[in-house]
Amino acid sequence: MKVYCSKDSLLTGVNTVQKAVSSKNTLPVLQGIMIKAEGQSLIFEATDLEIGIRCVVPAQVEEEGVAVLPSRIFSDLVRKLPDAAIILELENDIITIKYYESDLSLRGYDPEEFPLLPDLLDAETFDLPVSLFKTMIKQTIFTCSTEESRPVFTGCLLQIEDNTIRLIATDTHRLAYRFAEIPNTDQFKFQGIIPAKTLGEIYRLLREEDENLIIRFNPSQIVFQFGSVYLLSRLIEGQFPNYKQVIPQSCQTKVILPTKLFQESVERASLLARDGSHTSIIKLTIDTEHLSIDQASDLGKITEQMEIRKEGNDVKIAFNSKFLLDVLKIIDSEEIIFELSGPYSPGIIRPVDDPDYLYLALPVRTS
Amino acid sequence: MKVYCSKDSLLTGVNTVQKAVSSKNTLPVLQGIMIKAEGQSLIFEATDLEIGIRCVVPAQVEEEGVAVLPSRIFSDLVRKLPDAAIILELENDIITIKYYESDLSLRGYDPEEFPLLPDLLDAETFDLPVSLFKTMIKQTIFTCSTEESRPVFTGCLLQIEDNTIRLIATDTHRLAYRFAEIPNTDQFKFQGIIPAKTLGEIYRLLREEDENLIIRFNPSQIVFQFGSVYLLSRLIEGQFPNYKQVIPQSCQTKVILPTKLFQESVERASLLARDGSHTSIIKLTIDTEHLSIDQASDLGKITEQMEIRKEGNDVKIAFNSKFLLDVLKIIDSEEIIFELSGPYSPGIIRPVDDPDYLYLALPVRTS
Repeated sequence: MKVYCSKDSLLTGVNTVQKAVSSKNTLPVLQGIMIKAEGQSLIFEATDLEIGIRCVVPAQVEEEGVAVLPSRIFSDLVRKLPDAAIILELENDIITIKYYESDLSLRGYDPEEFPLLPDLLDAETFDLPVSLFKTMIKQTIFTCSTEESRPVFTGCLLQIEDNTIRLIATDTHRLAYRFAEIPNTDQFKFQGIIPAKTLGEIYRLLREEDENLIIRFNPSQIVFQFGSVYLLSRLIEGQFPNYKQVIPQSCQTKVILPTKLFQESVERASLLARDGSHTSIIKLTIDTEHLSIDQASDLGKITEQMEIRKEGNDVKIAFNSKFLLDVLKIIDSEEIIFELSGPYSPGIIRPVDDPDYLYLALPVRTS
Repeated sequence: MKVYCSKDSLLTGVNTVQKAVSSKNTLPVLQGIMIKAEGQSLIFEATDLEIGIRCVVPAQVEEEGVAVLPSRIFSDLVRKLPDAAIILELENDIITIKYYESDLSLRGYDPEEFPLLPDLLDAETFDLPVSLFKTMIKQTIFTCSTEESRPVFTGCLLQIEDNTIRLIATDTHRLAYRFAEIPNTDQFKFQGIIPAKTLGEIYRLLREEDENLIIRFNPSQIVFQFGSVYLLSRLIEGQFPNYKQVIPQSCQTKVILPTKLFQESVERASLLARDGSHTSIIKLTIDTEHLSIDQASDLGKITEQMEIRKEGNDVKIAFNSKFLLDVLKIIDSEEIIFELSGPYSPGIIRPVDDPDYLYLALPVRTS
């Protein structure tokens, strides 16, 4: 291998694939980043066998070749390289990086051992607008569970059918649901649970200038392709709960209130409600014109009150403050609709100007 | 107490004094921030008995009074207050904070127990340009030791005499020295060791718009006054080493080289020289036209080479990479002068365009 390239190209490659490098896998070669010089490109690849990322950057290839370099030290070194012309040369699994009058050498892994990403060439493909999918991820991903013991809750259900797309996440205490119409895609049908880590990586790597996102899939894997990135992920096996059953179709109380004021009130009240267990329970009282929060602890007490517009019954209800704050933080709409049906039924939060999104949280029983 | 003020005023007060709040002191009241309504001001004060900070912010005082509030929860709450008119009211050591239609109450400490900061009114005063003192702190503070067992090395020696000011720090392995002329101050004479924490706080709190910094002192304490801030600190007792003896007056090798290129080379080499102990030793070879770094480890090897201008002998010498990087990071000058006298004598680094600063580091013996 002999390649001429810029620091920026190397940095793009390393930064794009690095999160897919295995941190705990027992197979040493998975701690490496593969680089392959081919045609007029340098191809970067990393995988932990759950997720795999490939990134193609421009380079001037004088001699083709492939190497697998230890990820940590290679990434650290690339970040510290000068903005100069850089030459990569490979000989006997040792790669030499030259710049100015200096050079450094790293011993690589045997490239034969590196599991290349499959291409899913025959799979069905589906085109999605980038900004829509980024928004959908942001609106749902935070609701995923982190408990590995129940895998189906650690991902988001992606459903594509009949010119519509849905992304749904739940940790069994709450649920986030986003719907959108995608015209002219009625032949395409997909249903699968995508790991939250995969969606987080897509969110991180997607840029506004990436016009389209192409999705391919087979029964166990899904590929996202955008810009110079090819990201492959396993799908989570198992049955996602029937979310339609969970979402109530009516409510007894409907409140409209300002998003940021409500968020700040909950934040203040949760500071005072903090106990040793790091959860704080927020007690809400909704009457004709006001929503109020009353909280008292050893530290002091707080009475928050804000004006609302309300239809339906008065209600007292309590929520884990995190369940409210997580969603209030990601809603851009100035006002939310808060739907309740007594103290023991779930509360539903919707942005006033985004009818295709809803968030549901179970209340906490206080007595 | 009854006070009308803005969130910004409260935030300025809390942010300014908070670092002086005791984190481990056994006296509970020292975990508090004192607020005192007086005249047309709200005065904030906090101290851990080593350092004390006072900050005065404008407020509309309807009734004077004083309270001491638990620092952590009070600061957290102030940060979360709305940008609204805020009213503070005190009754029976309970302070109530009102905003919009909401209010919150915190139980305070007994203000009688709070140790007020002494005023050092009779002390001598000395005026210093703000930007000069900020630069002097930045150039020396990183050299202070963090080992509490040898207190004199945990601070910087400040010397003011004969129209000059000096700030010096050393941890016994290295030394940073900054000198400046301050005309028309020949009556003023001071010598004392100021804790690094104190200088760090001054650096954090000094703003470019603070035109002057006033220093007052008595034999055991020093006060820094600027803008709305009054910062009092104990001085460290003990004998600072005779730094003049340590600084060589001549050298056998004098090298001029580019600061950033040298910094980046050392950074790359130190990545490869990393061993389990987190220190990396950088071996430098200086010949007629080049400085080179050769480093090898299990990870790989590196040969860095850069062009230099040199007078005097060739030399091979080794340094702890941290001792080089710490100073290279804070030098703004494009080139440095590197003075050496063989492999066992200290190296001296000076910015080319700042003759009043020098940094000395002891080499590492390698064999």
